[in-house]
Amino acid sequence: MSVSDQDCANAIRALSMDAVEAANSGHPGMPMGMADVATVLWQRYLKFDAADPHWPDRDRFILSAGHGSMLIYSLLHLTGFARPTLDDLKAFRQLGSPCAGHPENFELAGIEATTGPLGQGLAMAVGFAIAERHLNAEFGDDLVDHHTWVIAGDGCLMEGINHEAIGLAGHLKLGRLKVLWDDNRITIDGAVSKSSIEDIPARYRATGWHVVECDGHDFADIARALDEAVASELPTLVRCRTVIGKGAPTKAGTSGSHGSPLGAKEIEGAREALGWTHEAFVVPDDIREAWLAAGKRGQGEHEAWNARLAAHADAAEFTRRMKGELPAGDPAGDYIQTLLADPKKVATRKASEMALDVLTAAIPEMVGGSADLTGSNNTRTKATGPLTSEDYAGRYISYGIREFGMAAAMNGLALHGGVIPYGGTFLVFSDYARGAIRLSALQNARVIYVLTHDSIGLGEDGPTHQPIEHLTSLRLIPNLDVYRPCDTVETAECWALALAKQDGPSVLALSRQNLPQLRAEAGMLSGRGAYRLRAAEAERRVILIATGSEVEIAVGVREALEAEGIGADVVSMPSWERFEDQSADYKAELFPDVDPSQILRVSIEAGTTLGWERYTMVHGLRFGIDGWGASGPIDAVYDKFGLTVPKITAAVRERLNAQEK
Amino acid sequence: MSVSDQDCANAIRALSMDAVEAANSGHPGMPMGMADVATVLWQRYLKFDAADPHWPDRDRFILSAGHGSMLIYSLLHLTGFARPTLDDLKAFRQLGSPCAGHPENFELAGIEATTGPLGQGLAMAVGFAIAERHLNAEFGDDLVDHHTWVIAGDGCLMEGINHEAIGLAGHLKLGRLKVLWDDNRITIDGAVSKSSIEDIPARYRATGWHVVECDGHDFADIARALDEAVASELPTLVRCRTVIGKGAPTKAGTSGSHGSPLGAKEIEGAREALGWTHEAFVVPDDIREAWLAAGKRGQGEHEAWNARLAAHADAAEFTRRMKGELPAGDPAGDYIQTLLADPKKVATRKASEMALDVLTAAIPEMVGGSADLTGSNNTRTKATGPLTSEDYAGRYISYGIREFGMAAAMNGLALHGGVIPYGGTFLVFSDYARGAIRLSALQNARVIYVLTHDSIGLGEDGPTHQPIEHLTSLRLIPNLDVYRPCDTVETAECWALALAKQDGPSVLALSRQNLPQLRAEAGMLSGRGAYRLRAAEAERRVILIATGSEVEIAVGVREALEAEGIGADVVSMPSWERFEDQSADYKAELFPDVDPSQILRVSIEAGTTLGWERYTMVHGLRFGIDGWGASGPIDAVYDKFGLTVPKITAAVRERLNAQEK
Repeated sequence: MSVSDQDCANAIRALSMDAVEAANSGHPGMPMGMADVATVLWQRYLKFDAADPHWPDRDRFILSAGHGSMLIYSLLHLTGFARPTLDDLKAFRQLGSPCAGHPENFELAGIEATTGPLGQGLAMAVGFAIAERHLNAEFGDDLVDHHTWVIAGDGCLMEGINHEAIGLAGHLKLGRLKVLWDDNRITIDGAVSKSSIEDIPARYRATGWHVVECDGHDFADIARALDEAVASELPTLVRCRTVIGKGAPTKAGTSGSHGSPLGAKEIEGAREALGWTHEAFVVPDDIREAWLAAGKRGQGEHEAWNARLAAHADAAEFTRRMKGELPAGDPAGDYIQTLLADPKKVATRKASEMALDVLTAAIPEMVGGSADLTGSNNTRTKATGPLTSEDYAGRYISYGIREFGMAAAMNGLALHGGVIPYGGTFLVFSDYARGAIRLSALQNARVIYVLTHDSIGLGEDGPTHQPIEHLTSLRLIPNLDVYRPCDTVETAECWALALAKQDGPSVLALSRQNLPQLRAEAGMLSGRGAYRLRAAEAERRVILIATGSEVEIAVGVREALEAEGIGADVVSMPSWERFEDQSADYKAELFPDVDPSQILRVSIEAGTTLGWERYTMVHGLRFGIDGWGASGPIDAVYDKFGLTVPKITAAVRERLNAQEK
Repeated sequence: MSVSDQDCANAIRALSMDAVEAANSGHPGMPMGMADVATVLWQRYLKFDAADPHWPDRDRFILSAGHGSMLIYSLLHLTGFARPTLDDLKAFRQLGSPCAGHPENFELAGIEATTGPLGQGLAMAVGFAIAERHLNAEFGDDLVDHHTWVIAGDGCLMEGINHEAIGLAGHLKLGRLKVLWDDNRITIDGAVSKSSIEDIPARYRATGWHVVECDGHDFADIARALDEAVASELPTLVRCRTVIGKGAPTKAGTSGSHGSPLGAKEIEGAREALGWTHEAFVVPDDIREAWLAAGKRGQGEHEAWNARLAAHADAAEFTRRMKGELPAGDPAGDYIQTLLADPKKVATRKASEMALDVLTAAIPEMVGGSADLTGSNNTRTKATGPLTSEDYAGRYISYGIREFGMAAAMNGLALHGGVIPYGGTFLVFSDYARGAIRLSALQNARVIYVLTHDSIGLGEDGPTHQPIEHLTSLRLIPNLDVYRPCDTVETAECWALALAKQDGPSVLALSRQNLPQLRAEAGMLSGRGAYRLRAAEAERRVILIATGSEVEIAVGVREALEAEGIGADVVSMPSWERFEDQSADYKAELFPDVDPSQILRVSIEAGTTLGWERYTMVHGLRFGIDGWGASGPIDAVYDKFGLTVPKITAAVRERLNAQEK
């Protein structure tokens, strides 16, 4: 008797409920509900080769409903990926298992993106789909010609980011993007109807999508719908009507199957209902073979692709880009030499544009954009023409007023590979995108955030637009390098450092206001995170530590103190993260561990002071802003918050005098 | 000659372009484009009385497109609000002027909500509209019967939060909510068509909205559309086709009029085109009188309402609620006595539910909800039945999978007055709502965030769901009180403190896992932010500082150290913000300012250590997590990160030994 689709789907159901039961934790409902759809997709449509999960022209599959992680773990296991093994599945959700609670791209090949935070998988898929069309436009059908498939649930579709993502995809006519919606009408709190009356297909159509519907438990109907989806030149939503927890005798169709083990009795009933007579974690050989065959289905195509690559004129360039290696040369270094020879006083957002002009010309994989603040973020360059539905070869994306969607799309662009995305908004609106910035860091994705208007220095727009807590709140995110350069030279250095970081995101926090060029020496000093920009001339009593636009103030304070015979260093500190990576010796050389009565440490940054104790010591002085900003011209606002050379100098002098008494 | 609508509208245009020009900063395009629509709304539809901006039954007007702030400043000035005066307008965007860059509710009566961060005004309006229907259901048409009007731009409609907001409004059939869409087809980067092909009316219809269209420069057509909007029982989008910067001879219809002063020459041309022959900031008396009449239009209705209130059986209760005063009594205090008498070991999320059971029964204005995690956040109580489109008197809102929309709606609920909103999600997903949490704090809105699963203690869901940086990143937001209670008693205290804070939001970070009741004494000690939970018995060498679930660990470490003759205090620190408000004496009593070699300070918190230097001193010890969490059972995960009694005890002992050498 030959193996049926139903048998294959039931293998997913069985592994999913068994693993969740063994872990006594997890979400059986989604994998059991979408097993049939996933079977059709992976057996007949998805282009992949389990033997080489990194084949550049594979289809991308993204489980946006990441809580249903046992679905993808089952699929990877059954189709013959090296991992997860059966033991891995048995260790689902245990410490050290690659089968974590939610799918993690850094744990398993075949997991294209880390999902779980709802809506972001689909939004990242938009980035994957943009990358595919962009690279296709650059390298042609021979090398780049694949689809991006998504499984998304009602949660993904209800999150606000969904609106931004599908709006962008519809606008860019990303016809290779196909979203399979697990329409099970259930959320954690019960029926979807408790919180939504939305006509989702109508909404998708309103944003330029094609919509197909099918019975998610009828294999022929699923195939018909996928055929239609593939045939459409529009991004397509496939509405799959399913039963959550399909097979569970009493919990199917209810939120009771969503996020808890089914329990031994319910599993027994499910085995009976499904006609699955095998023990826990046992998959019969014939079903295993059918699945393994699916894992090999793409081998022929893969081999043909290998042959095309070998013969391709741009093979080396394509391979370099997909590996994420930068081109040879040091465009930033060369450019910095010109700055040192001819200093410029410009805003660091402008300095960033100047650096980008050089870098985007030299590094063709850089793809820029902005969330509708191009002229303010200074993110567009001569080399980056518009990427549109008519010209995917362009390198500048008008993301629209969609900060979160932009950040998630950039994650997808970076994870696809072959492009290095950067994108701009105001620093204060990093709050809107924070969920995706965190995922950039967690996923080791090289995404560069250009966050301008980085302090009260933006002036009149006032407290709603003036970041206060944002610098330090971004510094708190692991694996995110936050840079706040003080001038043209540091800005160029920080760009080079961000580009060189293959395994994680960076933020460039940039000023609206003009700043003098303070650096006169080369040496990629920003790479140390903090360095002595000015050394004390008189006996050192003070170390002034500042970032970005406040380094100019620190230099002024130093001059005033030195004029009074008080020696003061100025340490420019563009990156806390980089500094933390330095040797203990270097750190101690910069910040000697002595009592504040000997050397007073002073921080100056136009943001919250919390956190600066790490560098000033508790008994040092911290100048910053611990409340809200204010609307007014820049000089008036800086004065209001005491961030001026005379006010800080006076406060430092007062402290020194007090110590002497 | 009588004053025409056009004259009145042109007064707005003139004041707007003059004020932006005087400030040399601001956004003339939107006020000039929407002046005609705003004139019809404020002259004929909006229910208000300029003499009493706090009249509880006024219509609420929310300028979601907050960058067009001169529109509302002009309207408030012209209709006779006490402020802004003409001098205030002349000082637009200057330090100290109530006419800040963006409208701020704490600067001017008549500004219902602080706007500027796009999309949030509309999303807050959903909360206003819910509050109106809820209070109407409780107090009847005689006291509560008003509309919520919004002016929104393309940016507001493109932001993801728009999807969440209109989904919630459509679901709840908020027919009193009317959104006037400034459809000018322009964004900062140029034409809307550069980033969107969306059919917005179709999308709104798909979520249960009624849609009306009009020519935004034809007064009769605007009135027709507003009549139709008011007649609809559904939330209604009024598409107003407008020209941005209407009147500006060369910049109208372009992004050039959006965010910069028009310049003297363009203004001269606009005066000519508009037939506005008056000097800058001059509004002729007859036009002033027409506008002042609009400001008095509601006086009769207001007086009738006053009479109805005076005669109303529930007048005192209604007035109390609208003032934001809590009912008499101390339900939390009474409840804490029962806890002290009968200790409970439960998760603090469960402790929160227990406290809520008492508090929601005693405080009828509390309206709860969750972003689809009710069973996990433990936010529903016996007293809070569902608030639905069939029963607005309910007190529990199924917000759906819409964290940002929930937070913004809660801002609207709080700002409307008469209700105290609280709502739940996982702590890690505070990232999704962060833009609105910031606005709760900036707007002084009493919103209580119930953020459960507050650490790696959630276990198997893994790094995507385990907050690391979130506690401290929330502590960084000014005017936001972050509480992390350690047991049932502290949880009840923190709830009482959050409710008592009339002028700002609070976060309750709550555990998934069970925690022992550690507190044995009464006294609202959480109000001090930090307090000595256990005092050293042996000579004090160590102060252990912990929050939430890690206080149990600190108590264990103390016991182990004391057993070795090392005296150790345990300080429970549920709130940094509250502690910072204490006297210097109290702080020094808890944390004596002595060298670490005398008394070592140690922090224990399952999150980033950055920031804890403030309390441990740089030379103290900090136990926490500075990378990502891990998927696994709770005990395994805590052990992996060294957050166990034996491991911390050993590290403290080692440090003490090293110091002695």
